[in-house]
Amino acid sequence: MAGRTARVRVTRVNVEDAGVSERADLLAAEEPLGIRVDGQAVSLTMRTPGDDIDLAAGFLLSEGIVATAADIVSIRLCDGQRCGHDHGTGDTTGNIVDVALRPGLAVRASLRRAFLTSSACGVCGKTSVDDLHVPSRFDLSSDQVTVSAQMLAGLPDKLRDAQRIFERTGGLHAAGLFSAAGELLAVREDVGRHNAVDKVIGWALQAGLLPLTGTILLVSGRASFELVQKAVLAGLPVLAAVSAPSSLAVRLAADAGLTLVGFLRGRSMNVYAGVERISVLRCVPD
Amino acid sequence: MAGRTARVRVTRVNVEDAGVSERADLLAAEEPLGIRVDGQAVSLTMRTPGDDIDLAAGFLLSEGIVATAADIVSIRLCDGQRCGHDHGTGDTTGNIVDVALRPGLAVRASLRRAFLTSSACGVCGKTSVDDLHVPSRFDLSSDQVTVSAQMLAGLPDKLRDAQRIFERTGGLHAAGLFSAAGELLAVREDVGRHNAVDKVIGWALQAGLLPLTGTILLVSGRASFELVQKAVLAGLPVLAAVSAPSSLAVRLAADAGLTLVGFLRGRSMNVYAGVERISVLRCVPD
Repeated sequence: MAGRTARVRVTRVNVEDAGVSERADLLAAEEPLGIRVDGQAVSLTMRTPGDDIDLAAGFLLSEGIVATAADIVSIRLCDGQRCGHDHGTGDTTGNIVDVALRPGLAVRASLRRAFLTSSACGVCGKTSVDDLHVPSRFDLSSDQVTVSAQMLAGLPDKLRDAQRIFERTGGLHAAGLFSAAGELLAVREDVGRHNAVDKVIGWALQAGLLPLTGTILLVSGRASFELVQKAVLAGLPVLAAVSAPSSLAVRLAADAGLTLVGFLRGRSMNVYAGVERISVLRCVPD
Repeated sequence: MAGRTARVRVTRVNVEDAGVSERADLLAAEEPLGIRVDGQAVSLTMRTPGDDIDLAAGFLLSEGIVATAADIVSIRLCDGQRCGHDHGTGDTTGNIVDVALRPGLAVRASLRRAFLTSSACGVCGKTSVDDLHVPSRFDLSSDQVTVSAQMLAGLPDKLRDAQRIFERTGGLHAAGLFSAAGELLAVREDVGRHNAVDKVIGWALQAGLLPLTGTILLVSGRASFELVQKAVLAGLPVLAAVSAPSSLAVRLAADAGLTLVGFLRGRSMNVYAGVERISVLRCVPD
């Protein structure tokens, strides 16, 4: 996993005993990644290297530029002069992902730019949320999966156990995809929490798993509007966050039929939308 | 502070006793804010309403679009049809900030767009960090302030005490500006940690306080490349974070002469760059 962490010298200060010591410290790596669609730069994001193809694919889905794996003709890492495929190693120092879209779809990529340019009008007044919302081709209301609250309560520990980089750096967000029974399907880490989610969803897109019917996405931080939108676009019915959701995250979740769980920590949780998918087992006393 | 929080109904589930109850919950508000410079949309960001003028001013500084308060001829909130000044209330539902730049400066605003468009070339290979880095007009190396590690260790509690919204919603990042003696000068909160920093720095820019010589900026989360860049552009010598820095944050801090402190919690901290500004008091035993 070269490139995902970086070793630095750090001065550790303990004010209790006025102790000062030098030591090595491992940090989460942060590098820029450019995404080019049909030769046009559409995004520059700061991310933790690794799973860059997944990140780019998830970004394209989240932005509404692609809707299916078939919309992507090719997607490859380009490292300066050399361009080459990832070959699934996830181990690369490439800082550009080159994407070619299905013919006829290239026009849609330019929509994003138009959206950015005209967005100031879109956010006037009450229509702002509707205008920001990227329409999904999946209808979450038909996903009648139920998940047990008891099982949900155990997911943060599972996610933490699966975070290989966080335990060494303390500096990474994680997103974990779980089955309705609580089985871990995929975990991705990044300095940016949106990136961690894009990596998971981009992996699922390319694996032909969309819509992610009957699955649960757990994020290590807060739940924002953008994270809810990413879940909805992936056809994913349950989003759970260890921390708080925002007001707009709750509104979009309720509108889209997504189950949104917040403050999933310890032995309790808050259900902000879609509570009908949460079951609570009650034990019968002897 | 209307608009900074939103009240929702939530289902609280406790798996210990299978308890399920409905109650009201207060969330951090998240709404889109568009920033227009000389009529051109330059940014759409999701933020917690309030201090929007500060946020826009800080954003313009962080992007290198303005360098001094005098570069901004006017900056005002525009709420749909009506456009009006904030009048310092910080209490508004406006979702657009309109900025007019000093004549001759408008060209620079278009630089950002050009930067975004050409950025994929900029991130090729080893020059990426240099290309991403917005040059600062302040030289931090001349700022010879020293701050006591003992004083620093007390700042997270001061920041938390000053967070008015977090304690009610649990969902906000905070940025606090402190004097070298540990006096709180300003605190701002936002669902986005970059926004919280932009709000503090934008306030300081408009108050004529730049460069922020001899001050400390404390952030409630992690320290990324972008946060270090914002500090450097404001001429601020010490950035402290409660959580981990990224690799690129440390590199930029070292290059720019910024003191970067991470994992500032409990009675200890890690100093990643600029350790010469940190003094550790040693008590002489009786």
